[in-house]
Amino acid sequence: MVERFVIQRAFAGADRPVMLAVAGDSATGKTTLTAGLAQALGPDRVTVLCADDYHRYDRVERVGLPFTPLHPDCNYIDIMEQHLQLLALGRPILKPVYDHCTGRLARPELVEPTEFVIVEGLLPLHSRRTRACFDVSVYLDPPEDVRRSWKLTRDCRDRGHTPAQVLDELQRREPESEAHVRPQRRHADIIVRFAPIAERGEDIDDPLSATLLLRPTIRHPGLHSIVESLATKAIHLKLVRDVDNRPVDALHIHAYAPREVAEQVERAIWAELVEPGPVPTALGALGDAERSEPLALTQLLLLYHLEGARTSRPTATV
Amino acid sequence: MVERFVIQRAFAGADRPVMLAVAGDSATGKTTLTAGLAQALGPDRVTVLCADDYHRYDRVERVGLPFTPLHPDCNYIDIMEQHLQLLALGRPILKPVYDHCTGRLARPELVEPTEFVIVEGLLPLHSRRTRACFDVSVYLDPPEDVRRSWKLTRDCRDRGHTPAQVLDELQRREPESEAHVRPQRRHADIIVRFAPIAERGEDIDDPLSATLLLRPTIRHPGLHSIVESLATKAIHLKLVRDVDNRPVDALHIHAYAPREVAEQVERAIWAELVEPGPVPTALGALGDAERSEPLALTQLLLLYHLEGARTSRPTATV
Repeated sequence: MVERFVIQRAFAGADRPVMLAVAGDSATGKTTLTAGLAQALGPDRVTVLCADDYHRYDRVERVGLPFTPLHPDCNYIDIMEQHLQLLALGRPILKPVYDHCTGRLARPELVEPTEFVIVEGLLPLHSRRTRACFDVSVYLDPPEDVRRSWKLTRDCRDRGHTPAQVLDELQRREPESEAHVRPQRRHADIIVRFAPIAERGEDIDDPLSATLLLRPTIRHPGLHSIVESLATKAIHLKLVRDVDNRPVDALHIHAYAPREVAEQVERAIWAELVEPGPVPTALGALGDAERSEPLALTQLLLLYHLEGARTSRPTATV
Repeated sequence: MVERFVIQRAFAGADRPVMLAVAGDSATGKTTLTAGLAQALGPDRVTVLCADDYHRYDRVERVGLPFTPLHPDCNYIDIMEQHLQLLALGRPILKPVYDHCTGRLARPELVEPTEFVIVEGLLPLHSRRTRACFDVSVYLDPPEDVRRSWKLTRDCRDRGHTPAQVLDELQRREPESEAHVRPQRRHADIIVRFAPIAERGEDIDDPLSATLLLRPTIRHPGLHSIVESLATKAIHLKLVRDVDNRPVDALHIHAYAPREVAEQVERAIWAELVEPGPVPTALGALGDAERSEPLALTQLLLLYHLEGARTSRPTATV
């Protein structure tokens, strides 16, 4: 019995979650950034999804294929689009699972969207259809030498690779990073760059400062007046032109910004929410012991956008 | 950047496939019926899907659970609904895979709908949402003793079970067959019953006759005049009341219906299509060598509905 009209209705799901994309190349700090957000929001409120689970081929099948996992053809992009759309509509999905240890595709798992859905991965902002699903989007853009250093450390420590293997893989992936990962930068609402400040003689092993490019594609808190009132050099806001000449606000947070200064900024940002509640704490965790003020402030700004979108404050529409 | 309007547009897929459901309990002949349809249509035109791949638990996990795989709670019904809706809209899905040999959930597989999609399984007509996806629906309804005999033969031969295990399993599943599988019968457009004719002293091992209950929920070919013109006892049509007293046409095809009589009926049915083309042949295969005239005619009637729905002949809407 044909009741096709039901199909249309069926897609009008329950409450829609607030969706955040965290895009970036391998070892750009996606998991570090996201883990802090997830912890602050609490496990009941947030669903974290890895866009890299949509690999079309397992590690064995990829041998001899003319592309790396960074290539859209190496991923079920159409299914990722579909799943993001479903989540954005508040509907569950049966998500594929790629096991990074074994390199195999495993049994899929049910994902039911909660209040917030964070999607991190190599290509979450790849297509117009995926981008349409997000309320807020972030692109992680560390300098290449910082990323290489992070990737070497992680892949050798956690994934059992040798440094030579990692460097090889970086080289092999470079053309596809350039062709498919980096173009996503231009579609993000916020671009996050953790880097040492060369003019100060800092290097990769020093605590890193952050520069956040805040595009006027979403409504940011009134940082201009907040930062001006501080009169500190540790945190400042500057109107700049991006690489493509588009105007953008650059928020700089120095690695050595004092906690009390950062706290003032955090409180001021948070107070702009319609229903502020307590300012999130325990942000900025780098691994088990270290803490980064620039990371904490980056996370707080993202939490502001997430909570803001939830309480229908028009952060998400300009 | 929020472009939610795109989400709505994204679901307006390409050409929609014609969708057929073949529902029925374990060992009711779903695969035999479906395989003939798939062969007649050709592999490029048809996608066959097993609804039982949506098991939520693997065999090990099911040990100790208070239900069998027949229970909706033992299946991702919501995901099955979603996938059927997507297929009905012409969109691909990443379908879970349940391995009947190992009893494990495996790597999912991409299914892209073709011109026709046939979904066979235990629960494809379970919910209003799944039913809404189908142009034509069939319920296979052999007498229980026929089904038991078929299940014993198949499970012992192909799945390595002992007869005692099969009988045990049948008994364990009985309450859930009653509660969840058999209620689908009332939602089907066509109910197919292969059975020996007791009044003629036939038993299970004789070639089986078929009775097709044709509900007026879809527009069937003009069988009344076709069958009347034959003046044979091998194939007849009778107005009857179903178990719930609803009026229904019962098409009976005797096991020993001569090929030339069946052929006449097939040709007459096929001629009612808007774009008939050649009458499908090679139908009615039972395993490698045997052939069943009732099965062939059943399959031809379903092919009529599939092709009819495709060429926009309003078989699917009354």
